[in-house]
Amino acid sequence: MTNDMIISAQDIAEHYAVLNRIGALGEHPSAGFHRAAYSDEETAVMIYFETQAKQAGLNVRWDAAGNLFIETTDTQEQWIECGSHVDTVPGGGNFDGLTGVVAGFTAIAALHQKPRSHGLRLRIWRGEESASFGITSIGASAALGTLAAPALDKRHAGRSLAQAMRKQGANPSLIESGQPTIKQNELDQITAHLELHIEQGIVLEKKGVDIGIVTGIRAASRDWVTLHGEFDHSGATPMGKEYRRDANLALAHILVNLDTLFLTHQEEDSGLDLVQTIGHINSNAEKNSHDSELYSNAISKVSGYAYFSYELRSCNDIMLNRYKQKAIQTIQDTAVAFGISAKIESISNSNAVKALDQSLQTDMQRICDTFKYSYSTLPSGAWHDAALMAQQTRSNQTPLPVGMIFIPCQHGKSHSPEEFASNEQIAKGASLLATLMQQGLSK
Amino acid sequence: MTNDMIISAQDIAEHYAVLNRIGALGEHPSAGFHRAAYSDEETAVMIYFETQAKQAGLNVRWDAAGNLFIETTDTQEQWIECGSHVDTVPGGGNFDGLTGVVAGFTAIAALHQKPRSHGLRLRIWRGEESASFGITSIGASAALGTLAAPALDKRHAGRSLAQAMRKQGANPSLIESGQPTIKQNELDQITAHLELHIEQGIVLEKKGVDIGIVTGIRAASRDWVTLHGEFDHSGATPMGKEYRRDANLALAHILVNLDTLFLTHQEEDSGLDLVQTIGHINSNAEKNSHDSELYSNAISKVSGYAYFSYELRSCNDIMLNRYKQKAIQTIQDTAVAFGISAKIESISNSNAVKALDQSLQTDMQRICDTFKYSYSTLPSGAWHDAALMAQQTRSNQTPLPVGMIFIPCQHGKSHSPEEFASNEQIAKGASLLATLMQQGLSK
Repeated sequence: MTNDMIISAQDIAEHYAVLNRIGALGEHPSAGFHRAAYSDEETAVMIYFETQAKQAGLNVRWDAAGNLFIETTDTQEQWIECGSHVDTVPGGGNFDGLTGVVAGFTAIAALHQKPRSHGLRLRIWRGEESASFGITSIGASAALGTLAAPALDKRHAGRSLAQAMRKQGANPSLIESGQPTIKQNELDQITAHLELHIEQGIVLEKKGVDIGIVTGIRAASRDWVTLHGEFDHSGATPMGKEYRRDANLALAHILVNLDTLFLTHQEEDSGLDLVQTIGHINSNAEKNSHDSELYSNAISKVSGYAYFSYELRSCNDIMLNRYKQKAIQTIQDTAVAFGISAKIESISNSNAVKALDQSLQTDMQRICDTFKYSYSTLPSGAWHDAALMAQQTRSNQTPLPVGMIFIPCQHGKSHSPEEFASNEQIAKGASLLATLMQQGLSK
Repeated sequence: MTNDMIISAQDIAEHYAVLNRIGALGEHPSAGFHRAAYSDEETAVMIYFETQAKQAGLNVRWDAAGNLFIETTDTQEQWIECGSHVDTVPGGGNFDGLTGVVAGFTAIAALHQKPRSHGLRLRIWRGEESASFGITSIGASAALGTLAAPALDKRHAGRSLAQAMRKQGANPSLIESGQPTIKQNELDQITAHLELHIEQGIVLEKKGVDIGIVTGIRAASRDWVTLHGEFDHSGATPMGKEYRRDANLALAHILVNLDTLFLTHQEEDSGLDLVQTIGHINSNAEKNSHDSELYSNAISKVSGYAYFSYELRSCNDIMLNRYKQKAIQTIQDTAVAFGISAKIESISNSNAVKALDQSLQTDMQRICDTFKYSYSTLPSGAWHDAALMAQQTRSNQTPLPVGMIFIPCQHGKSHSPEEFASNEQIAKGASLLATLMQQGLSK
């Protein structure tokens, strides 16, 4: 290993000097970014990398789902690749997704003229964030043939997904037909798929380490819970369940009972791989815009209607589903006790990646030791495109080897304008990524 | 007392046949009504009564606040009057307020040609409901000179209150000057002020009685409680207060702790005259329309922001305020325990009418006994214009004698299209009102 292989903070900074100006919400990056899935801003960033790739003498191809694949020109039988996305949530930072593309591009640009026994590829996926159309990993799942056709009717900013895809030169009929753009023979030739990402949590920063080696990717189970009680005059309706069927009061008791359920499980298993989040209480803009029941609530009324979102995440699907059954029982029992009807509707369910490729994790540890990078192993709490790749199998029935590299981000902030990772932090992660891509799998 | 004095169900039905067509949201009354404060629909109902009054040979006058006063033509030194309003909450029924006006009008129309030692007056107040401009009893408080000038800037349906007043021919400069339209000498000549209203609760119906004799009117203390925590990625942020400053979780615990606080007080005093209501959790349309923080919440984020409304009502101001101090402490202590900042902002505070005029209550009981109307005594949980009148004093420092008559309403429903009282139920209340107005005070 030679020093000239390592990506410098300067390499990262040069790309960000341009990229901080695409889809920014203000003059300074601290104002946040908005590059929606299949938006002009997302395409603009992809075109930047297409141009850079051509200048560097790399091949580029756009697939029918609108993803951009950048490849070395050699005609190898085997490929080591990395992937990430460039879209953001509204008011997000410029690191979730983009850092992985910058790291991947600088890695391939640094490596492509060096001798290797395999080709190198960067996949820039469309629309990983669910914020726009309510679906995660649109580009990757379309490319792998797993995006269900009803997704095309989901709407954002006045356009259906099908319309937004067409506007960016992609072909929505691909999704209707269920045809993947990444064929089986292409999957068979992938030696390893890698993704570098900011942690989006505070664990690495708290531990003061350079690198997170990701052990698995948590599944997310998401539901809407809708509570119907009865609207009544607050002054004239006596207190107590005999008179009041109070949706807001029931909601509060449900949430506290769910909190107790979680704490009980955590007491029994201090290493419990589970997070439980009520992100929304009556605070989803899209739902509220046509929810007349919600706005029948008033200061001077007993509440007749409320809703909340309920999310569980774990790398352990089986445990998650077992816990969820108890949670649903808790919700229903509490609602009934307050004379409330509770309706539970699934929003989405992703499959966990219980364990990412073990030999890739071992390789990462070895390279970190060589570079004197401190590291920690941890699961990914967030969903990533890499999870979809980890669910693919090759013709010989072996799973595609997938690895993920985390770098710390400041105060663990993400999906917020405060999201930040320094050029030095990114360069360390990119150097690890580049070394791994150059060396190939050791096993 | 003769039978021809009694108001018939037919008298009530004739007015409602017309009134069910003004401000209705559909062809059938079951679709609900919307007559906002200082709206064309409110004015249309008032003009109906103005026309009816003129036809009956009664005097009419509009005051500068836009209220309509209907009076007998005699020039008496003493007046017995009643009052109510004709505006509704959005999607309300046609009984809250209007029933009192119909009862009052039929009473005066039936009595005005009979010999009396006093004049009779009906006050049709503007804008009793707070739903439009966020302020209760706009017309009555303007007429009594107690409406603060900043109220003129409150907005509803694209207009300020000042603009809405002008559109209906009222004079907002009256409010800026703080001048009452009901002068002290007019107050001095009022022997009694009465208001008939639907109960807006289920107590009378449950007891199966015809009439509620109101003992007092509850004060309402209303606040917004705003919680600021920290937005974080739900998947990547570990559970526990060390990592999460979760506004939604804190909100749930606050509400449950307030519920416990209430139940503890109720255990100590089973007749506790107090109701505690959280009507809004993030569900105020006006607030949400310009609340970007609320819509920073997401399914996949730890919640950084939430708000709720907090209302207490009691006829006992002192007890209410003592309880409220403990409630505020509960809110703050719970918020702090979850790393959340809680801001408490007053929306409004009304003064309770601890006891309505005792001799009027005795007269009502006597008349009910004569008519063989069953009755029950109870406090009014809701605010009414009569409460403002009860807070007025005459030059001799005696309080204005004020009485309230409740009639049952179906299933206790109000502020809803399901609100209903039968013509027979209203006629009984109107007959009691008419008899009381004819006889004058017995003391």
